[in-house]
Amino acid sequence: MNLSPGQLDLLFQALGDPTRRAILERLARGPATVTELAAPFDMALPSFLGHVRKLETSGLVETAKHGRSRTVTLVPGAFTPVRSWLDEQRALWEGRLDRFDAYVQTLMQEKRDEP
Amino acid sequence: MNLSPGQLDLLFQALGDPTRRAILERLARGPATVTELAAPFDMALPSFLGHVRKLETSGLVETAKHGRSRTVTLVPGAFTPVRSWLDEQRALWEGRLDRFDAYVQTLMQEKRDEP
Repeated sequence: MNLSPGQLDLLFQALGDPTRRAILERLARGPATVTELAAPFDMALPSFLGHVRKLETSGLVETAKHGRSRTVTLVPGAFTPVRSWLDEQRALWEGRLDRFDAYVQTLMQEKRDEP
Repeated sequence: MNLSPGQLDLLFQALGDPTRRAILERLARGPATVTELAAPFDMALPSFLGHVRKLETSGLVETAKHGRSRTVTLVPGAFTPVRSWLDEQRALWEGRLDRFDAYVQTLMQEKRDEP
């Protein structure tokens, strides 16, 4: 994974907004035009386009112009850096619990070995 | 999971910063005082405390005062809402691929059945 510095920042920041997450949830079902995507939202088009642009900058979606409409598509594997970071945190955390467990086992063994 | 509205926003926003992610990576190895946490960062203490406060507001960490120092602890399971949302996206995406696969199978079957 060739992750540019700040890419993880952009990804998490893009996900920190309910409109942008709703757009991604819709796109997980398949590509859509900007007009289709905007329909459920009571929002001025420029604001809505700002959200789409933020998703595009983060690398989560791609857009392409077809005639007079613009189609938005989810980028396959775009969530991978986010998942990888979370998996690393879990591994660190579980490693810590394993070490704690081993420590408790050692204490208990010492207790049993006491005369 | 009792998730208040906006909680997912706060979580993703908290994760969208390299200093805050570094703090979480450190805390995955065990609790630390604010002084210990701040040591690796070339940052004024008020700015650093702002990051700790943002992590606390999002529910990712807890802080407790012990004498003159403040200990910061990772909250177990705090990443769960983030993971759940990502898992939902993956399920939607895979459901879509399965449906596409079934559609292609149907097309191929129809092709074979042609006289």
